[in-house]
Amino acid sequence: MSRGSAVNLLCLGNRAVSVLYGSPLRSLLHISAHNAGSLKPRSGFRPEKVAVVTKTTRYEFEQQRYRFAGLSEDDLKQLLAMKGSSYSGLLERHNIHTNNVEHIVKSLRSKGINVRVVKRGEYDAEVVRWADAIISAGGDGTMLLVASKVLSKDKPIVGVNTDPERSEGHLCLPVRYTRAFPEALDKLFRGEFRWLWRQRIRVHLEGTGINPAPVDLHEQQLSLEQHNQAHRNTAADNQRRPGALHETVSKPCLLPVRSLNEIFIGESLSSREKFKPFKHHVNHLLHRASYYEISVDDGPWEKQKSSGLSICTGTGSKAWSYNINKLAEQAVEEVLKIGKFLSGLDIPLNREFIERVTDRYNEALVFAPDDRRLLYSIREPIVNRVFSNSRQRGFASKVCVRSRCWDACMVVDGGTSFEFNDGAIATISMSGDDQLRTVVLQN
Amino acid sequence: MSRGSAVNLLCLGNRAVSVLYGSPLRSLLHISAHNAGSLKPRSGFRPEKVAVVTKTTRYEFEQQRYRFAGLSEDDLKQLLAMKGSSYSGLLERHNIHTNNVEHIVKSLRSKGINVRVVKRGEYDAEVVRWADAIISAGGDGTMLLVASKVLSKDKPIVGVNTDPERSEGHLCLPVRYTRAFPEALDKLFRGEFRWLWRQRIRVHLEGTGINPAPVDLHEQQLSLEQHNQAHRNTAADNQRRPGALHETVSKPCLLPVRSLNEIFIGESLSSREKFKPFKHHVNHLLHRASYYEISVDDGPWEKQKSSGLSICTGTGSKAWSYNINKLAEQAVEEVLKIGKFLSGLDIPLNREFIERVTDRYNEALVFAPDDRRLLYSIREPIVNRVFSNSRQRGFASKVCVRSRCWDACMVVDGGTSFEFNDGAIATISMSGDDQLRTVVLQN
Repeated sequence: MSRGSAVNLLCLGNRAVSVLYGSPLRSLLHISAHNAGSLKPRSGFRPEKVAVVTKTTRYEFEQQRYRFAGLSEDDLKQLLAMKGSSYSGLLERHNIHTNNVEHIVKSLRSKGINVRVVKRGEYDAEVVRWADAIISAGGDGTMLLVASKVLSKDKPIVGVNTDPERSEGHLCLPVRYTRAFPEALDKLFRGEFRWLWRQRIRVHLEGTGINPAPVDLHEQQLSLEQHNQAHRNTAADNQRRPGALHETVSKPCLLPVRSLNEIFIGESLSSREKFKPFKHHVNHLLHRASYYEISVDDGPWEKQKSSGLSICTGTGSKAWSYNINKLAEQAVEEVLKIGKFLSGLDIPLNREFIERVTDRYNEALVFAPDDRRLLYSIREPIVNRVFSNSRQRGFASKVCVRSRCWDACMVVDGGTSFEFNDGAIATISMSGDDQLRTVVLQN
Repeated sequence: MSRGSAVNLLCLGNRAVSVLYGSPLRSLLHISAHNAGSLKPRSGFRPEKVAVVTKTTRYEFEQQRYRFAGLSEDDLKQLLAMKGSSYSGLLERHNIHTNNVEHIVKSLRSKGINVRVVKRGEYDAEVVRWADAIISAGGDGTMLLVASKVLSKDKPIVGVNTDPERSEGHLCLPVRYTRAFPEALDKLFRGEFRWLWRQRIRVHLEGTGINPAPVDLHEQQLSLEQHNQAHRNTAADNQRRPGALHETVSKPCLLPVRSLNEIFIGESLSSREKFKPFKHHVNHLLHRASYYEISVDDGPWEKQKSSGLSICTGTGSKAWSYNINKLAEQAVEEVLKIGKFLSGLDIPLNREFIERVTDRYNEALVFAPDDRRLLYSIREPIVNRVFSNSRQRGFASKVCVRSRCWDACMVVDGGTSFEFNDGAIATISMSGDDQLRTVVLQN
């Protein structure tokens, strides 16, 4: 399979069969297991009330940003030009997005559907309660935001990629429906689609000095200081009261978030080996190693040091996790060269063969969104006398992590963070209750 | 070569011959080139004035940290115990370091050498001017600090690893000299050593909105806000003055730093694909992709998107760059499995063979400290329709990078950062003038 195909595989959002260490038979078993999470509807789906959640375009952001500096539209144009960026390019992208949103809204209203258009910043639990279905109009980031407020497995979410030129849209409908949205609606009404229940991750936190209050990084717009303050208020209060030390050991609490892509655990500027963690408060821009202990499926605890730990869903296996684990052709070529040299076998080293091996390796990193398993990956493991590393990645039902970090966070889908410092223990698992109901249309 | 040997190779600080895509003949050429950077001294080296720069131990840091919270030593003990950390362990490490420093200082004074013991925070250009030689007493981090203030290629630096149990000490003398320092001194006096001139990296910055004022992350102890403020004062002033937009294009300026390990360029929390760069000011804890353009050895500019870019020296090829590029046995095994499956050849897949291939692959990532070449590595490249990736890593004499980032930094040896946002251009190269004079003792 060529690289082009591999990219298409990712872009279309198709379910990829997991072949990680798998035989063909095992692949078939995975297909059967996968189908259990996807369902042909008994009848069409015709929501009465639809919320359309829209992203903020870069153009809108730039305008707001420079408005503070007192610059006019002309000034903005000049400034961007000097940087080599294109003002007209930004405006064009903005208009494409806006037009696509209009197209979606018009299509919905022409079918008599009650539509509420909601900007990213206005999207909340009330909107979720009101809507029969929610459409995300943006890219994958907007889909993650939309999903983050949907905790029920019954509320359907549909992603439409409003800027296919710029956004990969893994979580969105196939690109052709962006300008042909009425077709998508017709298929929904006629039941010509499948439900796909995407498994999500849940997290229990316990241990000393934890703070289960999430910090929403998108809405709060905190500086690093404010962020740390928000996290530490509870912990600091406990520390200053006499005899309070005994009170900070907490029982496990289930966090009010569900991860659609991944949980990433690491030092705030993960990660480097060189600088000792205790310098963290001056090192907000330094890359420090993340220290932690990990137990997979109730196995023995293992001390590790790395650039961080990613635990992803099938949906997330195409996202950050994929980039952490992906191999470049250059690396594959070098491995095969060395294998040839050391074995004396005539292993092919032509471009085409290397591409095939690389693509097969990388495709196996992706697994189905309705798969009940987690994939844990250690980013840049540091192996030396002290820290062992049995496996760099693997599947699991449950992963427990005990932090030995100084200023680390657990980041959920890149949008919500939890303090995760020395002594905190996270139990990461999946439950069928946490599924997200999404739509699969044939292309 | 077993993994143990590979680790020893790193720990001993031996020069490794670069075999990246190399034939045996090419390896020999590299050896000759390498020897040019290392020299047997004509006579012994007997400095009159030696500065000993010491690290801050974690114990010292903890004490200072909790002193602010008003905790007693007993409280500190309890708090650490609850977190599963060991108070007595920290104290032990602190004492080991302190004793080793005493040993070094006594050894020097017993030879009639004028010794100044300087804490990390007190080390400055005046100390460098005063000293005939500087000893770094700590780990690799302390060596980087010591080197950062030495701009002359004539001032000898010697690293002594004061806590071999905990620190890798790649930049330090072989571990046995830590408690046998008089032997090291005798060898120095008798000329039984080699000078090793470690090549360092220099950076020119130019383009719009740059600020050539470095921010020292160790000494300043800035919050993120203060850090950004320090960087932006100049740029903001320029923006607010009418007609000032034309004045912000700067001529190339040579930064007052030399990198001993590497330059790392990336978004402040590099790096993820999902979130658009314009959200940076709320995303200080999010991982965003770094966007930039790169030109190697005056080649064509290439747009890239990744988790960041590392450009390292031979010295640094054992540090962060190594962790970015290193392969786990699990990955090598999978590549060989796929290679076997697709070629039909009986490629060995036993543990021993996989270990050999893995070790050979990883060893080739390391090259000699006196090598005049840079090694650039792209961390987690993101390849899609827009962004190409010809090579994930390679050698060069010069690398130019044009930032397309929003809140990125260029971090030198993990200790000094420079703002590197949209429009800034960095030219990264090496000059013989920038060498750092260090000592190699036989083990």
